[in-house]
Amino acid sequence: MTSATFKLARRCERLKASEIRELLKLTARPEIISFAGGLPAAELFPAREMAEITRRVLETEGCKALQYSTTEGDPTLRHHIAERMNRTQQTRVEADEILITSGSQQGLDLTGKLFLDPGDVVLCESPTYLGAINAFQAYEPGFVEVDTDDEGMVPAALEQALARHDRVKFVYAIPDFQNPSGRTWSLARRRALVEIAAREGVVVIEDSPYAELRFEGEPLPALHAVDTAGNVVFLGTFSKTFCPGLRCAWLAAPRALREKYVMVKQSADLHTSTLIQRQMAGYLELYGLEDNVRKVVDVYRERRDIMLGVFAEAMPEAVEITHPEGGLFLWLTFPGHVNARDLLEKSLEQHVAFVPGGAFFPNGGNENTARINFSCMQPEQIEEGSRRLCRVVAEVLG
Amino acid sequence: MTSATFKLARRCERLKASEIRELLKLTARPEIISFAGGLPAAELFPAREMAEITRRVLETEGCKALQYSTTEGDPTLRHHIAERMNRTQQTRVEADEILITSGSQQGLDLTGKLFLDPGDVVLCESPTYLGAINAFQAYEPGFVEVDTDDEGMVPAALEQALARHDRVKFVYAIPDFQNPSGRTWSLARRRALVEIAAREGVVVIEDSPYAELRFEGEPLPALHAVDTAGNVVFLGTFSKTFCPGLRCAWLAAPRALREKYVMVKQSADLHTSTLIQRQMAGYLELYGLEDNVRKVVDVYRERRDIMLGVFAEAMPEAVEITHPEGGLFLWLTFPGHVNARDLLEKSLEQHVAFVPGGAFFPNGGNENTARINFSCMQPEQIEEGSRRLCRVVAEVLG
Repeated sequence: MTSATFKLARRCERLKASEIRELLKLTARPEIISFAGGLPAAELFPAREMAEITRRVLETEGCKALQYSTTEGDPTLRHHIAERMNRTQQTRVEADEILITSGSQQGLDLTGKLFLDPGDVVLCESPTYLGAINAFQAYEPGFVEVDTDDEGMVPAALEQALARHDRVKFVYAIPDFQNPSGRTWSLARRRALVEIAAREGVVVIEDSPYAELRFEGEPLPALHAVDTAGNVVFLGTFSKTFCPGLRCAWLAAPRALREKYVMVKQSADLHTSTLIQRQMAGYLELYGLEDNVRKVVDVYRERRDIMLGVFAEAMPEAVEITHPEGGLFLWLTFPGHVNARDLLEKSLEQHVAFVPGGAFFPNGGNENTARINFSCMQPEQIEEGSRRLCRVVAEVLG
Repeated sequence: MTSATFKLARRCERLKASEIRELLKLTARPEIISFAGGLPAAELFPAREMAEITRRVLETEGCKALQYSTTEGDPTLRHHIAERMNRTQQTRVEADEILITSGSQQGLDLTGKLFLDPGDVVLCESPTYLGAINAFQAYEPGFVEVDTDDEGMVPAALEQALARHDRVKFVYAIPDFQNPSGRTWSLARRRALVEIAAREGVVVIEDSPYAELRFEGEPLPALHAVDTAGNVVFLGTFSKTFCPGLRCAWLAAPRALREKYVMVKQSADLHTSTLIQRQMAGYLELYGLEDNVRKVVDVYRERRDIMLGVFAEAMPEAVEITHPEGGLFLWLTFPGHVNARDLLEKSLEQHVAFVPGGAFFPNGGNENTARINFSCMQPEQIEEGSRRLCRVVAEVLG
């Protein structure tokens, strides 16, 4: 039997290796200045503190921290998460609405599994997060991109999409410092989305990995916070405020839905690592996340400013640049005739990498866009890489 | 919107909370002697060594151990796993055929995702592992139980099932100390399965969590080891030889298939915890697993013997009892009129729990069976609990 004859499921025709992760492999060479990945700055991770926490957890709890545990997750961790969400996101979540997930990617996968039959419809921003497209694709939905501007999804376009498609299962949105565009939804747009979705009987999936990484301006309430209908599922993670290598995240869902999520998680991986959950709960208790978040925000703000500074000075005027108030990414829109994949090839010759934007549009097109990460390179690399990128763009634009 | 109106995927009609895990909640009370779960003996977990390993990993690798990593998994860990498999399972696996998974449950889920369209057919032993039934159910297959006796699946029955069903995607089997029955396949049956499956062009999924926990008799080669067609996917885990709370497991698949598994894992959770993988690799390097396995085998053998001793003495003769040569479970078959669910109720009154066997038959029936775990209670509890169980059975049988 050769690989060609393995009889795989139909969904496999839709799955392709993530362009981002394939690129990450390419750009692992040390000479490359990579704005391609979405990696947090590793030098800010509290490695020493994690060792101390692990020692304490294993000393006080011993073997219990290494045993099977419940699918819902560690009660103490869920309590801390609810408390923290309510403090930072203006929500009113209770601990038993929380399900611990193995990274927010799992929250996306479980969401697809719970809601999507083949041919169902997902409404999403345009562009939207590539990892979510990949997670949902496995369940064979159609994607309808809703017109999105600097304030978020356009409500009239959302209503139109809901009127046109009768198999919409949920609206997927990243309201804060969106990946890939860096844009943040206004309060009015948040309210409009939640109201329309509740009225039309579709769930809102709020993916919120970046909300706490705000460099400037006032925090806005989460979609979950402006919802009164119990109709929003919130996906949160410690990957950006703490570190991603633990794969520790959560979702908050109305109880009846949370129970269903527990069932699909149970069949997917039984539960998230007991030890990781105890380490995370221990860290929150002993150190809290506030210092971490403050450090990350200061570092990323400086890096964004360096990049925006170079772009303001040297990027051709025909290129539109977003001004993210937080997060890890900004977004470039080139004149329509530019193909960012070609641009990437030229840019790689100068040892600078980014992600061509087309991959973030589930229905294709928009090849004249690019996602630029500013979180994981050192300031001098950002300065130098941004200059090189501007030169490449200027050359291509003539 | 009330919970009743959430529009969920069709597959959710098939998903139900695992009976085993619901029971585990019931039986958490300290007065209960539980033969219900499949928990390893926690007192054997190397908690102190894990703290030491974590200190070393974070000291030498620092932030790298907390950063994102590749979907395939840590190269060092994959290398150790391949080497260990070849030593203990008689396989010839290479490191790049290994994919690290978040527990073997994830290996099962990814298998369902990769192979199964609604209406496809899974061939399995009768009975089979409940966690696998749950994982595969999410992809809406039919299950065909192949006649199984004390030596494994009956080859003629397997051929008949393959002839009758043209949408068979894989054969799922647990050849060593099966969960739930405790039975082990003979070498002849292993060879027959692998040959028939290769000839008929269906993949074999070999679930092997227990093979190293052999109390007596000679180790038999894995299905993967007797396969020459590159047609067997092997699922292995550290949950039973080390500890389950890490959620660290793996699968070994022919390269072309391993690449597809990587894609479905990427969309499911990006990758398994970097830190957990480094801890596991570090443990294997510094301590190895041999002492652990030896300790576990000695303890479980003693516990099995106590249980079998009491049953031989006090269980009514009408009850069939398997004699597992390893693993965590034995299996009781009562006379046809006995319903093990009723028996469980009576048994719980005596503060003894087990799992009624009906749940392990995907197409139902066989309510006169029970799975009995002997790994996680102390010797005196096993002695006492087994005696009580015998009394309850004797009472029911009159």
